[in-house]
Amino acid sequence: MTTLQADTTRASAPVNPGKRRYRPLGLSEIQLTDGFWAARQAVNGGATLEHCDRWEQRMGWISNFADAAAGACPERRTGTVFSDSDVYKLIEAMAWEVGRTADPALNARVLELGGLVAAAQRPDGYLNTHFGAPGQPPRYSDLEWGHELYNYGHLFQAAVARLRTGHADAITEAALRAADHVCEVFGPGGAEAVCGHPEVESALVELYRTTGERRYLDQARLFVERRGRGLLRPIEFGPSYFQDDVPVREASVLRGHAVRALYLALGAIDVAVEDGDGELLGAVARQYRNALSKRTFLTGGMGSRHQDEAFGEDYELPPDRAYAETCAAVASVMVAWRLLLATGEEIWAEVIERTLFNAVAVAPSRDGRAFFYGNCLHQRAPGAPVDPDTPSARAASRSRAPWFEVACCPNNVARLYASLATYFATATNDGVQLHQYAPCRVDTRLGDGRALALEVRTGYPFGGDVEITVVAAPDDEWELGLRIPAWARCSALVDGRPAIGPLERLRGPMPPGTVVRLSLPIETRTVEPHRRIDAVRGCLAVERGPLVLCAESSDLPGGLTVNDVEVDPAGEVALTEAGAVIAGSAIRAAEPDTWPYAPPEPAPDAAKVRLDADPAAPGPEPLPITLIPYFDWGNRGPSTMRVWLPKRTAGPG
Amino acid sequence: MTTLQADTTRASAPVNPGKRRYRPLGLSEIQLTDGFWAARQAVNGGATLEHCDRWEQRMGWISNFADAAAGACPERRTGTVFSDSDVYKLIEAMAWEVGRTADPALNARVLELGGLVAAAQRPDGYLNTHFGAPGQPPRYSDLEWGHELYNYGHLFQAAVARLRTGHADAITEAALRAADHVCEVFGPGGAEAVCGHPEVESALVELYRTTGERRYLDQARLFVERRGRGLLRPIEFGPSYFQDDVPVREASVLRGHAVRALYLALGAIDVAVEDGDGELLGAVARQYRNALSKRTFLTGGMGSRHQDEAFGEDYELPPDRAYAETCAAVASVMVAWRLLLATGEEIWAEVIERTLFNAVAVAPSRDGRAFFYGNCLHQRAPGAPVDPDTPSARAASRSRAPWFEVACCPNNVARLYASLATYFATATNDGVQLHQYAPCRVDTRLGDGRALALEVRTGYPFGGDVEITVVAAPDDEWELGLRIPAWARCSALVDGRPAIGPLERLRGPMPPGTVVRLSLPIETRTVEPHRRIDAVRGCLAVERGPLVLCAESSDLPGGLTVNDVEVDPAGEVALTEAGAVIAGSAIRAAEPDTWPYAPPEPAPDAAKVRLDADPAAPGPEPLPITLIPYFDWGNRGPSTMRVWLPKRTAGPG
Repeated sequence: MTTLQADTTRASAPVNPGKRRYRPLGLSEIQLTDGFWAARQAVNGGATLEHCDRWEQRMGWISNFADAAAGACPERRTGTVFSDSDVYKLIEAMAWEVGRTADPALNARVLELGGLVAAAQRPDGYLNTHFGAPGQPPRYSDLEWGHELYNYGHLFQAAVARLRTGHADAITEAALRAADHVCEVFGPGGAEAVCGHPEVESALVELYRTTGERRYLDQARLFVERRGRGLLRPIEFGPSYFQDDVPVREASVLRGHAVRALYLALGAIDVAVEDGDGELLGAVARQYRNALSKRTFLTGGMGSRHQDEAFGEDYELPPDRAYAETCAAVASVMVAWRLLLATGEEIWAEVIERTLFNAVAVAPSRDGRAFFYGNCLHQRAPGAPVDPDTPSARAASRSRAPWFEVACCPNNVARLYASLATYFATATNDGVQLHQYAPCRVDTRLGDGRALALEVRTGYPFGGDVEITVVAAPDDEWELGLRIPAWARCSALVDGRPAIGPLERLRGPMPPGTVVRLSLPIETRTVEPHRRIDAVRGCLAVERGPLVLCAESSDLPGGLTVNDVEVDPAGEVALTEAGAVIAGSAIRAAEPDTWPYAPPEPAPDAAKVRLDADPAAPGPEPLPITLIPYFDWGNRGPSTMRVWLPKRTAGPG
Repeated sequence: MTTLQADTTRASAPVNPGKRRYRPLGLSEIQLTDGFWAARQAVNGGATLEHCDRWEQRMGWISNFADAAAGACPERRTGTVFSDSDVYKLIEAMAWEVGRTADPALNARVLELGGLVAAAQRPDGYLNTHFGAPGQPPRYSDLEWGHELYNYGHLFQAAVARLRTGHADAITEAALRAADHVCEVFGPGGAEAVCGHPEVESALVELYRTTGERRYLDQARLFVERRGRGLLRPIEFGPSYFQDDVPVREASVLRGHAVRALYLALGAIDVAVEDGDGELLGAVARQYRNALSKRTFLTGGMGSRHQDEAFGEDYELPPDRAYAETCAAVASVMVAWRLLLATGEEIWAEVIERTLFNAVAVAPSRDGRAFFYGNCLHQRAPGAPVDPDTPSARAASRSRAPWFEVACCPNNVARLYASLATYFATATNDGVQLHQYAPCRVDTRLGDGRALALEVRTGYPFGGDVEITVVAAPDDEWELGLRIPAWARCSALVDGRPAIGPLERLRGPMPPGTVVRLSLPIETRTVEPHRRIDAVRGCLAVERGPLVLCAESSDLPGGLTVNDVEVDPAGEVALTEAGAVIAGSAIRAAEPDTWPYAPPEPAPDAAKVRLDADPAAPGPEPLPITLIPYFDWGNRGPSTMRVWLPKRTAGPG
């Protein structure tokens, strides 16, 4: 068995590639100090982790491990086949939080949970509360739906979080035993098989990166290369559902179940990076690029279909039935981050920013105790108020729910938020790159151990001024990279000079006390969809800095819903404190009570209409429409909401 | 037990209300003789029935009955919990076909199948191959998903078809025993329960109408009134999925699973009609009207969502993900027909016409051996060619499949087609009403036994001339009603005079030899959606007479897909033999390889563009776009298709 000790040679961060363009910073090297994301980290640490723990106790997912250890499964077992993984995700989230805050009580809980988990492990390393015991289905008898390897993946990631934050304990021991077991069962000469839900691939690579155990990487590569060759049995949704239709190197676009597709991409990138496999890296980058250009919502959300939680076809992007599962957004951030580290292309930091602000931050409620599972861009009818004591049976965008029978999303956000700072900046031998803007402190060492410390102050994303103070710096020349968002590229200023390119590189001796001032123009802009995105033809959306805005009925007068408004495509958009106001109209048109399809009315002669129109006939009423950040909708009670606003096309006025 | 004999007092038709505005004609009173629908009946009788029989043998659904009789279930049983119902639907379809054609071989097959079914019945009348035997789940232990009462419903309808076509045999005996068993188990003092899938309600009423056994009606009423009171246990999709959220009398719109909602409507109408319950009838009519005005596709198809096969929200009508299950269209015809018989309102005949031509006729392939299960209005990407030997796991609109694991749709179309003539005309004491136009022969008796016979000739729906020749008629005054479709109301002519109103009533002595000539102007027209139907904003569709047209890539040049075209909203639409041609453009725009949302381009000054535009820049190319009837798409190999055509909005040219 692999010998194990806390990994102090690697950054305390979720992703630690051995080969890379940029080096990630660990939790000890970057901390969020204030502002938008720090507030969310505080809610995550102060409310969400405890909330998830309480619900996983209540649902019986935690006690499943004790029951398995006591031989009381399947009789006493509850939850889905993948409920073990939610406990692992929670442990991972807690582990990063302990790494971030050194909270002794939380650390004690991690140890307690890890002990429960480890006690359920079989002598040969197998660990699962749903399979393998007398009365349960045999081990690995349902690779299509059983999620056994998926569960291990999350176990491994929990262990990686512990090891990288300085702990070797029961769960890290259990993870290594399980990883060795996986390599024995599924390695060369073993079962030629893959799991219906990718996840173990990337986790095995991170375990390799943390332990140096080469066969974990080899096993990950085997799983990546085996996929797409029909090893999984046929299922209702077809082999593309779990990406078993086309080998990873040959696929042109992400397809099928969105989270599965993105998790597979994570693993493939990790394998490609460690092996220096440019072909594989290029294949996954191409698939992700194609998904971004043809299968992604304005928010960065991915996955158009509720039925199989899948991407759907190119340009199939319905705002009302957008599935845009929170977990897919989390996974997309993880994919983009790996590509950024591997390639240094700032486009991936752009994707991370859009996705974090608009597809991830929308999921938790303000208090961190309720969650969207899917994240639609158009809520047609208000949901019912949610009972904070009742779990939701299924992803429903109508209202945030306190919990779900399938609870991947709350835990996934929790583990991302706890480690969030590590996605914001990177280092090279001679400098630091700031990819995301938030009040933060950076304290790291460049090549030759040269200390570099920065203090960042900003009101971003509501204000665009970013002030970077050098606290400690090498005596000689070093580089400060500042990402210039695409929307700001024409008018961003660095110390009053126009910024150039996607990464503004400041080089020179910048001694402690140096202050660099970046000015990003936080303005509103309207955007329109590519003509092939049929579902939002004739609409515009408004963005403000990195934020997608939306109209919510909570801001509309007189019982109007968002279905009753149109906007003036040539009208003014005025900035407000948190959002904007756009010129529009209320259409109080009668709803048809017969057939809703009819020949078009003859185009009115505008002058004639103005002279002759019946003054009593209700026309559109001018209405300034308040727009708020999409991430904040649904926090004021049941409402309707829309991101894409129909443009006024005809009629008098 | 109820005594049983062939029912010769009722029309040999699926629906025989005791109280009604119009009397339905039976298969002996109206026959389709030629044209669009007679051709489909011929394919149904000559290919589809045998196709269904062969597949149900191959899938093991027929042998399930023999296995159940031999005590070999559950070991040998195959298929879903509702596979029994598919055998019943097939028997019903065959029974109507025997009634229509008197085919002795088919009658022998009905007797054979009926014998198999009856042999599986338990002594107390219980009949189901999935429940109740040793090793199977107990009877009625899963009313939410078990479909036991649903299965009975289709058994009863098969029996009704046999009784009304002059046969009393093993399956009619079995049905009556089962119905008595149902009344004992679920009647007053019995289990206060309903089935997760409505269907038995209407079937019980028809069984009452056929046998005179009052308690079948009483039981149907009980089932209707019990629903919407939370008697079913919670399921993932919520109680609206099976209409258990609101009592039938109180609901305002059809909701949840579309086929379930429509089958419940059938039963509620049947109960209301027999009981003279105007409140209940009005409630269902209101729900159906609301579904038609806000939850129905242009084709008449119903059901927007794949996930739960449900209606979705008002105005949620995505063309690409339209589910529009074939069975829902069949059920909608059945609902509209009942409302027409009950109220005499021609709007319901309009709905039947639209739905038959556009939502039902599209389902079977030309050869009657492959079927769409869902019927989308926009096929973005061509499907793979279908293997005629492999059943489809699930509803997929991509291509017609030879069979499905869930095979309600082929059987449902088969039973509708075999009895189709009975939905085309009605009678009153002093006349006949023609609601649908097809070459046909009517031979019936009015009040006081007065003989009336008509011969109808027409090329409808491709031509609009209808010639009705009186073959036999009363000596005195009688009435000939001719429905004038809404689209034709301004210009339809009867014997050269303008027709008036939705039903042109010709009264007078019209002796044999009289010829009435109806001229319906078969022209094309463009229609636009109500502004709230977001998914097709900025698009138009073209209709021609009763037919919805569509563009299919098979008719486009140079590898274009239907996603590459726009139409000129002011352009000419020219009639062609079967469809039309509309002026449009091909847009060979490059697909974005980055982010597909961008600020709008400044509106070009048209004059300037014409003078200065780079002549090499590819602009829209003028392209006449061929439109074919929607019912016929997908018959020329894999293709893309769209009903809603984007209107050209800007740009030079």
